[in-house]
Amino acid sequence: MDDTIRQHKYLLTEDQIPTTWYNIIPDLPVPPPPPLHPGTMEPVGPEDLAPLFPMALIEQEVTGERYVDIPGGVLDVYRQWRPTPLFRAHRLEKALGTPARIYYKYEGVSPAGSHKPNTAVPQAYYNAKEGIKKLTTETGAGQWGTALAFACALYDIECEVWQVGASYDAKPYRRLMIEAFGASVHRSPSQLTEAGRTLGADPANQSGSLGIAISEAVEVAATHPEVRYALGSVLNHVLLHQTVIGEEALLQLEMAGDTPTHIVGCTGGGSNFAGLSFPFLREKLAGKISPEIIAAEPASCPSLTRGVYAYDFGDTAGMTPLMKMHTLGHDFVPDPIHAGGLRYHGMAPLISHVYEQGLMTAQAVPQTECFSAAVQFARTEGIVPAPEPTHALALAIREAQRAKETGEETVILTALCGHGHFDLTAYDDYLNGRMVDEDVTEERLAHGLETLPQVPVG
Amino acid sequence: MDDTIRQHKYLLTEDQIPTTWYNIIPDLPVPPPPPLHPGTMEPVGPEDLAPLFPMALIEQEVTGERYVDIPGGVLDVYRQWRPTPLFRAHRLEKALGTPARIYYKYEGVSPAGSHKPNTAVPQAYYNAKEGIKKLTTETGAGQWGTALAFACALYDIECEVWQVGASYDAKPYRRLMIEAFGASVHRSPSQLTEAGRTLGADPANQSGSLGIAISEAVEVAATHPEVRYALGSVLNHVLLHQTVIGEEALLQLEMAGDTPTHIVGCTGGGSNFAGLSFPFLREKLAGKISPEIIAAEPASCPSLTRGVYAYDFGDTAGMTPLMKMHTLGHDFVPDPIHAGGLRYHGMAPLISHVYEQGLMTAQAVPQTECFSAAVQFARTEGIVPAPEPTHALALAIREAQRAKETGEETVILTALCGHGHFDLTAYDDYLNGRMVDEDVTEERLAHGLETLPQVPVG
Repeated sequence: MDDTIRQHKYLLTEDQIPTTWYNIIPDLPVPPPPPLHPGTMEPVGPEDLAPLFPMALIEQEVTGERYVDIPGGVLDVYRQWRPTPLFRAHRLEKALGTPARIYYKYEGVSPAGSHKPNTAVPQAYYNAKEGIKKLTTETGAGQWGTALAFACALYDIECEVWQVGASYDAKPYRRLMIEAFGASVHRSPSQLTEAGRTLGADPANQSGSLGIAISEAVEVAATHPEVRYALGSVLNHVLLHQTVIGEEALLQLEMAGDTPTHIVGCTGGGSNFAGLSFPFLREKLAGKISPEIIAAEPASCPSLTRGVYAYDFGDTAGMTPLMKMHTLGHDFVPDPIHAGGLRYHGMAPLISHVYEQGLMTAQAVPQTECFSAAVQFARTEGIVPAPEPTHALALAIREAQRAKETGEETVILTALCGHGHFDLTAYDDYLNGRMVDEDVTEERLAHGLETLPQVPVG
Repeated sequence: MDDTIRQHKYLLTEDQIPTTWYNIIPDLPVPPPPPLHPGTMEPVGPEDLAPLFPMALIEQEVTGERYVDIPGGVLDVYRQWRPTPLFRAHRLEKALGTPARIYYKYEGVSPAGSHKPNTAVPQAYYNAKEGIKKLTTETGAGQWGTALAFACALYDIECEVWQVGASYDAKPYRRLMIEAFGASVHRSPSQLTEAGRTLGADPANQSGSLGIAISEAVEVAATHPEVRYALGSVLNHVLLHQTVIGEEALLQLEMAGDTPTHIVGCTGGGSNFAGLSFPFLREKLAGKISPEIIAAEPASCPSLTRGVYAYDFGDTAGMTPLMKMHTLGHDFVPDPIHAGGLRYHGMAPLISHVYEQGLMTAQAVPQTECFSAAVQFARTEGIVPAPEPTHALALAIREAQRAKETGEETVILTALCGHGHFDLTAYDDYLNGRMVDEDVTEERLAHGLETLPQVPVG
């Protein structure tokens, strides 16, 4: 009996926490296309972003440096939960009967329960350094809102969160957690903003989307000079901050004496995926390793697998710069699946560019397959995953089953980017047969793409 | 700004996980009184306990050995989350403006989110080794039920949980978490047992208690020869398993170069408190350190501070052996406070004995003071505590404030035995002014004590 349940965790010491964030841009064969000002169609400059972000973050957004120093004050906070553990999923492997070796990097040990504090803390830190006293933001699943509320509490910054309606309704505990940290929460779409009000008089009937919630939070920041805005994914500086995940995982796999053949991460805006995979992609571009890097996205919001690569707005109301990315159109409202953190119409421009360069692949997964994987994972590995990373778990299990058939020596690395303590109604739905898979029709896709802004070529 | 938020965690390596559990009994000046068979009033023997527990646990219950070996198979599972971190609460200290140094041992990093897996895993392990395929249990706050469901999933044991009604109603996510791990949950009192049915036809109107839920779970195990029962606190073997907490904390405080002057833990049944404090009490009895050891109990369930030290049943229906302990009477039903894990009429016999020997003290804390401490803790340390350990946090803050007045060099150690992710409605009540402190009247105390069983003296 004893040998059936062994669990290996690979722990680093605190002095192995990365002291720099990794910026992949200088290592890419082709630089990514710049964001454009929607009025002039010219590349945006720092001054265009200054109403929304502190200068330190704007500099990180456009930096060409390969490594960006992590301030000591941020490291002091990271040390509360970093380095995070890497686990070998022995018990899951055994249940699957697979020869594949499955590793998962677990970010749910953070105070907010996900990878989001990796960027929430530096964002709050730089805002505090520049004297900002209030931040606005959106949240989908609630993980980002929780993380920013936590970070703002540390730096004595007021925090106001627009939570996507579907998530606000389904996950009351997320709101309560954000409030416990001292932030305030609004259901989005709200009547507090022009962006929300234009959606009609009865927003409570609308499930909302990340694009709409972003519009609301951006509007408040843009119209109040003393307020700044913080985004939980999509932008270069957010992806940059998350690379601590992959940098640690590189060291931990080395401890395990293993080299990944498959790296699988879930993608909504893309920050968790980039955080895990970009340091490995650096090694791949340097010819040291050759893993297949796979994005797992929800079948109901398939920006990489069924979207177009085009300039589009980051939000629904069209207040952000235009970003070249894989998009379903900024008007696209995904079905209210449980993985609220993945309900974003676009994809991080940097990931979109990497995808276009052929450096990674993507697969879409229906949510019932995700929750089947999640329950099997919970009952073997003992951790109840958030709905978002179950997409990556489902693909990891697909690969592990393929390895069982082919006998190939497969080594899978995935990121378990958060726990599902606030998502248990989703498990209830799944376990009681109430979960459905909704597909995106061609008509809906075509409709979403009709609203793409016209951008002059060249 | 940077130096205001430093966070120190003290981490051990995996080879520093204790390989033995510590049994305090041989180190006590006087042995504790034995449990009695309620029919014969003679000390119970192993055969009396055999219908409920596997023999390995019965042996641990009565062992005179100072150290009990932890099986390799249990250590393999412990390694998933142990050693747990010890944190220095720098940010809380700063907010309090205290010269006291506050340390907290954080057990919320376990898969179930509390200290309970420390004993759930060995209990499931020993039952599985003896071929048991089904366990029953009770749960108050839901932490124990979650932990046992997790452990049973690992060993392929069926698990049936009676959840105290007040907790079942207030914490639906706890039930869902238990179900996600594959166990089944009943609201207690239920109509499934004689113990539940005798409480009347409309148990849904009753808030229940741990004593009632224990009766129900024990009844099912006692009347089904193939089923065993597992208890999450109170008994010697449960306290024994929890000593990994204190053993690790001893090493970690040594790393920190500090010696505690105050050790504060919350007490319901007492397992978390014993787990933290007994290894330190061993050092105190050996004359090496001299901390004050303080139990923090809820004002609404004050077994140590306002109960009597007498033989009483461990459950409401009177199915268990008689145990000499501090009790409010097995009929006492505490107010439905949010700290469901502390709503137990008695106290672990071993802690009661230690208390009678003058080796520790106790204080009762009203729940609004607890939640005031909890919110301050969440907004400084970044962790939202479960309601139970907020009792210890409140006393830690009292001591820290005293140190501020007296200037004494106070070093406080406490156990943050679980996170509050499933208790957020309690925070909602507190933050919105809906939380009240209910006191226990002398009449209610007297009523509870009327039903104490008569035990011949001598």
